[in-house]
Amino acid sequence: MSKTNKNFANRRREIAAIAEQLFLEKGYENTNITDILEATGLSKGGFYHYFGTKEEIILECIQNIAEELSTIAEKILGEQQLDAIDKCLTFMKIRDDRLQDKQEIVGIMWMVSKHDLYQSKMIELLIEAFAKPYAQLIEQGNREGLFAAECPLETATLIMRLIITSALKGPNNNSDKEKNEEKALNHLIIRTLGITQLDRVRQGGLHV
Amino acid sequence: MSKTNKNFANRRREIAAIAEQLFLEKGYENTNITDILEATGLSKGGFYHYFGTKEEIILECIQNIAEELSTIAEKILGEQQLDAIDKCLTFMKIRDDRLQDKQEIVGIMWMVSKHDLYQSKMIELLIEAFAKPYAQLIEQGNREGLFAAECPLETATLIMRLIITSALKGPNNNSDKEKNEEKALNHLIIRTLGITQLDRVRQGGLHV
Repeated sequence: MSKTNKNFANRRREIAAIAEQLFLEKGYENTNITDILEATGLSKGGFYHYFGTKEEIILECIQNIAEELSTIAEKILGEQQLDAIDKCLTFMKIRDDRLQDKQEIVGIMWMVSKHDLYQSKMIELLIEAFAKPYAQLIEQGNREGLFAAECPLETATLIMRLIITSALKGPNNNSDKEKNEEKALNHLIIRTLGITQLDRVRQGGLHV
Repeated sequence: MSKTNKNFANRRREIAAIAEQLFLEKGYENTNITDILEATGLSKGGFYHYFGTKEEIILECIQNIAEELSTIAEKILGEQQLDAIDKCLTFMKIRDDRLQDKQEIVGIMWMVSKHDLYQSKMIELLIEAFAKPYAQLIEQGNREGLFAAECPLETATLIMRLIITSALKGPNNNSDKEKNEEKALNHLIIRTLGITQLDRVRQGGLHV
């Protein structure tokens, strides 16, 4: 990326972060471009240099969140001493911790997922961000004999689609229906990956 | 449904069928409300009694297609002499035949799936239409010892989501990437359902 492109990308990211705060404080519908100009100190022309619409900011926010989580995933993937099941369990724990810590991330995801117009773009963006690290994890599991999955990238993409659309449904209030949904998804993942050491997965807190 | 509601629903269906033809002949973007008024003989007020926007007509078209296919599915499900694997293979064959016969159905699905705004609604509508018959098929397979799947309805919903989003990607031009995608999806389904008689599935034409 050239220096100019990098500056452009960084500035877009900064503006999106400020707008995200406004969306969370005032609500997405109640935040207008004028509010964003005020908070960022940009002129109207300056703002439209970076974003065409308010909806584009939302996608930028989601992309930033996805990149952040994807960086964490890459880091865990690089840890040599963990086998594939340990890495799965570490992913799950970190994801849960961060969703606890960062309620605002969860908030903005649900908010956006209510906006039909951008939902499918957002889902594709998230799948794109996570399928590759997930595929590497599947390859590791195959090498270690812990998984037996074919076509790792394509399989990762399918599973990511289900994890993401299920996460976007909003908070789980533990009804029987939701428990069955969670159980069905966990079964599907375990069977598709061909995970053999089910006891370790169960001990790690996966509802099977 | 009361008689008035039934008449309303039937009239909506008729208007949608006429509009569908226009969309396919002229293209969705190039068809405007005036064209639809002309073809249906409705006044503007008459039209808006049935539909708020052009996009609502699209959803009605998709709903009609989904109901038609879902009726076929129910009929196959009712055939006592077929076991669950025979029913799976019959579904697949009929779906392929009808997609061959009715290129316009395929055309309208791809067209709509390019319209971001309605894509996610359409997907939910199709999942809703097919998850129940698919769940009945899973239950039959479980009873017959041909499948071993838990939570049939939730599992059917997950698998339907993947089949539908994959179908909405458009025509398969048989690249290696697409072959792997198809293989990964078939694997996922076979493993999740716990299908044991793989030979019959292979002979039936499933790429495994």
